[in-house]
Amino acid sequence: MSSAEKFDRAALEQLVVKRFFYAPSFQIYGGVAGLYDYGPSGCALLNNIISVWRNHFVLEEEMLEVDTSIMTTYDVLKTSGHVDKFADYMCKDLKNGEIFRADHVIEAVLEARLQGDKEAKAAKAGKSAEEIAAEAAEAAAAKADKKKKKKKGVVVAVELADDVRQTYEETLAQIDNYNGEELAAIMKKFDIRSPETGNELSEPKEFNLMFESSIGPTGHLKGFLRPETAQGQFLNFKKLLEFNNDKMPFASAQVGRSFRNEISPRSGLLRVREFTMAEIEHYVDPENKSHPKFEDFKDVVLTILPKDVQLSGKTETVDMTIGEAVAKKVVDNETLGYFMARIHLFLTKIGIKPDRLRFRQHMDNEMAHYACDCWDAEIKTSYGWIECVGCADRSAYDLTVHSKRTGEKLVVREQLAEPRTVELWQVEINKKTFGPKFKKEAKAVEETLMSLSEEQYAQLAKDLESSGAGSVEVNGQKFEISQDNVTVKRGTVTEHVREYTPNVIEPSFGIGRILYSLLEHSWWVREDDEARNVLSFPPVVAPFKCCLLPLSGNAVFEPFVRKFSRELRQAGVSIRTDDSKASIGRRYARNDELGIPYAITIDFDTVEDNTVTLRERDSTKQIRDTFENILKILKDA
Amino acid sequence: MSSAEKFDRAALEQLVVKRFFYAPSFQIYGGVAGLYDYGPSGCALLNNIISVWRNHFVLEEEMLEVDTSIMTTYDVLKTSGHVDKFADYMCKDLKNGEIFRADHVIEAVLEARLQGDKEAKAAKAGKSAEEIAAEAAEAAAAKADKKKKKKKGVVVAVELADDVRQTYEETLAQIDNYNGEELAAIMKKFDIRSPETGNELSEPKEFNLMFESSIGPTGHLKGFLRPETAQGQFLNFKKLLEFNNDKMPFASAQVGRSFRNEISPRSGLLRVREFTMAEIEHYVDPENKSHPKFEDFKDVVLTILPKDVQLSGKTETVDMTIGEAVAKKVVDNETLGYFMARIHLFLTKIGIKPDRLRFRQHMDNEMAHYACDCWDAEIKTSYGWIECVGCADRSAYDLTVHSKRTGEKLVVREQLAEPRTVELWQVEINKKTFGPKFKKEAKAVEETLMSLSEEQYAQLAKDLESSGAGSVEVNGQKFEISQDNVTVKRGTVTEHVREYTPNVIEPSFGIGRILYSLLEHSWWVREDDEARNVLSFPPVVAPFKCCLLPLSGNAVFEPFVRKFSRELRQAGVSIRTDDSKASIGRRYARNDELGIPYAITIDFDTVEDNTVTLRERDSTKQIRDTFENILKILKDA
Repeated sequence: MSSAEKFDRAALEQLVVKRFFYAPSFQIYGGVAGLYDYGPSGCALLNNIISVWRNHFVLEEEMLEVDTSIMTTYDVLKTSGHVDKFADYMCKDLKNGEIFRADHVIEAVLEARLQGDKEAKAAKAGKSAEEIAAEAAEAAAAKADKKKKKKKGVVVAVELADDVRQTYEETLAQIDNYNGEELAAIMKKFDIRSPETGNELSEPKEFNLMFESSIGPTGHLKGFLRPETAQGQFLNFKKLLEFNNDKMPFASAQVGRSFRNEISPRSGLLRVREFTMAEIEHYVDPENKSHPKFEDFKDVVLTILPKDVQLSGKTETVDMTIGEAVAKKVVDNETLGYFMARIHLFLTKIGIKPDRLRFRQHMDNEMAHYACDCWDAEIKTSYGWIECVGCADRSAYDLTVHSKRTGEKLVVREQLAEPRTVELWQVEINKKTFGPKFKKEAKAVEETLMSLSEEQYAQLAKDLESSGAGSVEVNGQKFEISQDNVTVKRGTVTEHVREYTPNVIEPSFGIGRILYSLLEHSWWVREDDEARNVLSFPPVVAPFKCCLLPLSGNAVFEPFVRKFSRELRQAGVSIRTDDSKASIGRRYARNDELGIPYAITIDFDTVEDNTVTLRERDSTKQIRDTFENILKILKDA
Repeated sequence: MSSAEKFDRAALEQLVVKRFFYAPSFQIYGGVAGLYDYGPSGCALLNNIISVWRNHFVLEEEMLEVDTSIMTTYDVLKTSGHVDKFADYMCKDLKNGEIFRADHVIEAVLEARLQGDKEAKAAKAGKSAEEIAAEAAEAAAAKADKKKKKKKGVVVAVELADDVRQTYEETLAQIDNYNGEELAAIMKKFDIRSPETGNELSEPKEFNLMFESSIGPTGHLKGFLRPETAQGQFLNFKKLLEFNNDKMPFASAQVGRSFRNEISPRSGLLRVREFTMAEIEHYVDPENKSHPKFEDFKDVVLTILPKDVQLSGKTETVDMTIGEAVAKKVVDNETLGYFMARIHLFLTKIGIKPDRLRFRQHMDNEMAHYACDCWDAEIKTSYGWIECVGCADRSAYDLTVHSKRTGEKLVVREQLAEPRTVELWQVEINKKTFGPKFKKEAKAVEETLMSLSEEQYAQLAKDLESSGAGSVEVNGQKFEISQDNVTVKRGTVTEHVREYTPNVIEPSFGIGRILYSLLEHSWWVREDDEARNVLSFPPVVAPFKCCLLPLSGNAVFEPFVRKFSRELRQAGVSIRTDDSKASIGRRYARNDELGIPYAITIDFDTVEDNTVTLRERDSTKQIRDTFENILKILKDA
């Protein structure tokens, strides 16, 4: 039986508390859902994951790391689309005021009814409730693909008509796709009530998931806590390109806190209101998404779940080299593929098990408003497959909208090897008649005329030619254009410089989710002793690399503890000294729970001959050697 | 002339922008005062400072680092005192609505009037306005001790009566000490108006400096962005003590973002609305503030400015070993002294000049509400002496208030070597009569009776003895106590365990302020070329340790760039490759401005014999050797 199969979440949760990996924030005040504090072991693990990430991505590729403000102004997030679209639907228990996420409550109620149907049918067939519950649990485990865990509805054994059952199942299958009106209709149609009280619920209402505040003393300048670190990177694009000596492609990166005011946080670290992200924005020429280092990684094998497989209702994954996936156009381009391979290598380096890691492609209706292709690195945990890294091609969306809104050019200018002739629409404005005609609107109309789409130019040219007049819309108002003041025609120009808005490939890491998954993948129990939990972190991320254990509180050991700890630290080996009175055996057990890979024991022989015992965590094997030799081993570990 | 004297702030500011150390956030949207983004060079510098900090403090002393929530609930910050006391006074231009910090606007106006007086007197004496302005500038530089820079008032040459001038000067000297009412009185008395418009100003109003938001969808749960990382550490005290196997003393630590919604941010990175802090909370026995490692650092010499010197109106500092300062009780205790020495070593290690670093003791009226002794590490910059690290003894304040509010015991229990007998007030309650008398208030009255102060017990015992009755106050209500239901007497108990609330010594680092000061201290100009700015960061914090420069874009250099950069990275040497088309000289100049200590140039000889040129930034000295030998040099640098 693999450790994934016999995983015991309750035991891990207990260990997490006992060894203070993390705990609810303000716990002595009762805590608040979705906010967690990392304790010393969790914080060290977090810092080490970030440090490996920084080495693996930022330093390896000379990415331009930035550190931008969390507090972000309304204008920025209005432009990026977050003010309008970063929302979930909520509804309220009309009697007690409890608030639910609309899609979650529908799921809970319908699933409870389907379960009730099964139980009723089984009861008819003579099965016991326990047998059915066991079957249901199995079915749920098999269905663990579904990422969201639901607030359980109360199950009442009532049989459903076949067509009703089918409608419920269809509704559940598409639950991610409904908008507010559709959710409202479903709630009405199926009489969805609070699964806890049975009370009626209010109509679903949009709730924006950004924390809102106000900047400065006036109260007039609205600000939000950023929902992602990406926007701070896009806003600095021009400065970053310049810093990179105008060379393309290049990437910026950022590690930092982001916020999401969840309606009802759940599943521990997996759905929280405040979290550390690490995001890369790789800027690339839209006409050439090759990657200079793709060749070096083309043989990395990934487990992938493409969208066409999912559309056919299946979840069977394929193992494929990223080279083949890109060649076969399963993955859109080299740069996207390059990052998928690099993400895979990063995650397995820190200890994520490759057999519980897959890349799932987003289906078209599932993608964010800005994305044009997206693959999630999903990690299998006891909560199902969890999206831990998103790897999206955000196209030119963000740079384009910010540029449009601010008037700042966010483009790359590339000197062409050979000048080239391009055909385009040319607009000439008759200054004499144009100004007087449009008066104070003249500037806005001119700007609009200069930035129409290909189709709009074609239409306008046609209109002007056929009837001598056409029109443009400026901020919802129609302005009549005539041949007297504007000419629109197709012409050619010679270009020496090519100007383009780069596309952005964005690998975005949820560090807390990765950390939690790593805890699950690292956890196991010693065969000989069920009470002995071990966390087998790789040394590179373990909270501490080595534990220093003086045999007892005898003062004779003190100078050795001081000397060894100094030398270990100088060699870059992070340590934890455990000089408590517990027996060595109990202290070893404690180290296992903290995931510390090595322990050095100082005893009376040490005082005589400078030898120490080195114990390895996973094998519990011990060797005896001089401290100097042991130090060498640890340095290279 | 020292570089401090010929420092040119405008030149540094230009460099900061050009090499993207930092820039206003959302600059393409017009920016917001007090919010900054760190670019690649600034972010690397910031990360390196934090990394040295972590090694110097956290790893060296096995501090328990935590990472707690930024979003903090109302209850926590109400208890800590921030909801009531973390505020500044503001007033509003009654016509145009502009908002000022009350103390700043008083300063600006009175200083402008004093300046006007000087000019008027000088004009009488026949001096030109320019001469006077020059004198004033000099005087201002000499007075640069004052930390706050002011919005300049409009200077009008009007002579003042001697007594008026004197009152102005006295007011300015005490500007930090006034409360709201006093500020209001001063504004009225001196007819303080907007220095920009001359309009009347509103009465000063308190403005809380915390950013407020609301957690979850109900809108009822108020949250604030934390103003310091300390509270998150205090709230976890119990878990941390347990993690430390109940051993005292110990320290927790945290690096993270904090927020302060300044009324009018100014002075670049020095007064901002969002900033990175690094804070240590060292928990110590109030009866024994010695430090086990004090001995190792007692000979560190610090430049100190004790409070008695300041009280006598002087600013002369003394150089003293910390051993002497503690022995003479200039510094209250060993632990405080230990951290002052360690702070000094940290700051000078990262490149702060010791001759521009001092420790200033807070005067009694200046200390935060919770502190019982406090020393600021102040760094001299062109803005004057800047508080960059606070080192305060917060006493038992925070743990006590949180414990009282939540009912959670935040104490240390220490097994006594020998049991001891203590004398204390004992309260006995006659359950039979007590309950019926106080009914539903009985519990509250009992709790109050159990937690009176020594004086209150003495008074109550006396009252009961003399008149048979006394009283206690519970939530503002008085309750009569009689001998029938309560006995209060002095008695002795034998204790086997001592229970105490630890005191907290808190070194608190403003990383952005340190970073800015470091920029000033590192900046200089090559003698031979005024246009050539250099930032002489020590290698340990320099944004990149080494620059890699291929002579030209010739493809023959590419494999060398790839190989060398890989090997440098593997050796832990952070690099920046500059393969732009600029000349080697121009690229060296660019590296100097980025503060990169070393540059390796790859040329045609490299292709032949694998040698490279290594250039050192400060001396511009160059040596030629094989890459392998150069790598060894850099590894040890």
